[in-house]
Amino acid sequence: MKVIVFAVAFMAAATGVVTYIGPAYGQANSGSAPIFVNEIPPGYRDWGLISVAHEEGSFNSFAAVLGNDVAIKAYREGTRPFPDGAIIASLHYSHTPSEENNKVFGQRQSFIAGSPTNVQFMVKDTKKYAATGGWGFAHFKDGRPADDTFMKTCFACHNQAKDRDLVFTRYAP
Amino acid sequence: MKVIVFAVAFMAAATGVVTYIGPAYGQANSGSAPIFVNEIPPGYRDWGLISVAHEEGSFNSFAAVLGNDVAIKAYREGTRPFPDGAIIASLHYSHTPSEENNKVFGQRQSFIAGSPTNVQFMVKDTKKYAATGGWGFAHFKDGRPADDTFMKTCFACHNQAKDRDLVFTRYAP
Repeated sequence: MKVIVFAVAFMAAATGVVTYIGPAYGQANSGSAPIFVNEIPPGYRDWGLISVAHEEGSFNSFAAVLGNDVAIKAYREGTRPFPDGAIIASLHYSHTPSEENNKVFGQRQSFIAGSPTNVQFMVKDTKKYAATGGWGFAHFKDGRPADDTFMKTCFACHNQAKDRDLVFTRYAP
Repeated sequence: MKVIVFAVAFMAAATGVVTYIGPAYGQANSGSAPIFVNEIPPGYRDWGLISVAHEEGSFNSFAAVLGNDVAIKAYREGTRPFPDGAIIASLHYSHTPSEENNKVFGQRQSFIAGSPTNVQFMVKDTKKYAATGGWGFAHFKDGRPADDTFMKTCFACHNQAKDRDLVFTRYAP
């Protein structure tokens, strides 16, 4: 179990996932400090593109990293740290060969987004998430949030990217 | 040269690239029929996500495939053929290892969008592009459109995906 949790923590780190929910619908986990985000930010599938990501090995993961307007603006203007209100979403899929594409090309070369595996978010709120670098973390699989044990691995890994305000993903031009 | 053109044709096919420009700023190449699109659709970088794509081998390409509102709506509602006005954009980057991410993870696993290589579009206009399945094709490198010899390879390859209205990319949920 520990290995799995670590593996997913690496995954989360790799894709720069985090989510801001905002006071209106932010939810704290049990405990005194609201470290995690338990609600999926509405409309995230329509957000703008930050970049794409691919993790090899046991992850075999393909990601599209999106941002809400606050996040996209901060990326484009180079604003760091990200301002409160920024939310970054990482939509993960299996990195899957496309047999139908390869058939047309006549060789094995094409990989596409296969089954969705999870959606992760990073939410910037410097007061609410002061204990975790100003970011609240979220991980949803089939619409359900991960448990606290799992979620505690997020910050430890993202915190190694302090020079990038804990966000791994850079903006693709 | 022929090999290169073919290689790029495969690439274009793999990522389901096409673009609609619309009557306001659509441009025809020389000749009687407007087969290609020579202007970059404004605002495409803000469009919604369709999916991601990765081509291995000599392509070593990483793509984000975006769509304008007409295209996204058609994808979500399963409308085929795509209606006039639909534009699909494929933003291509080199599929590049992320040394800074790998350093954090302690292993080589992470690939990101490297240098941008080209942007391709498919534009649906059944009258204007009747000769090429209703789609106008576009390929821009450093903001400049590819020449006609290059562009003539697009339709031949995309036409092999007739069951998908010539579009290779499927929508990622």
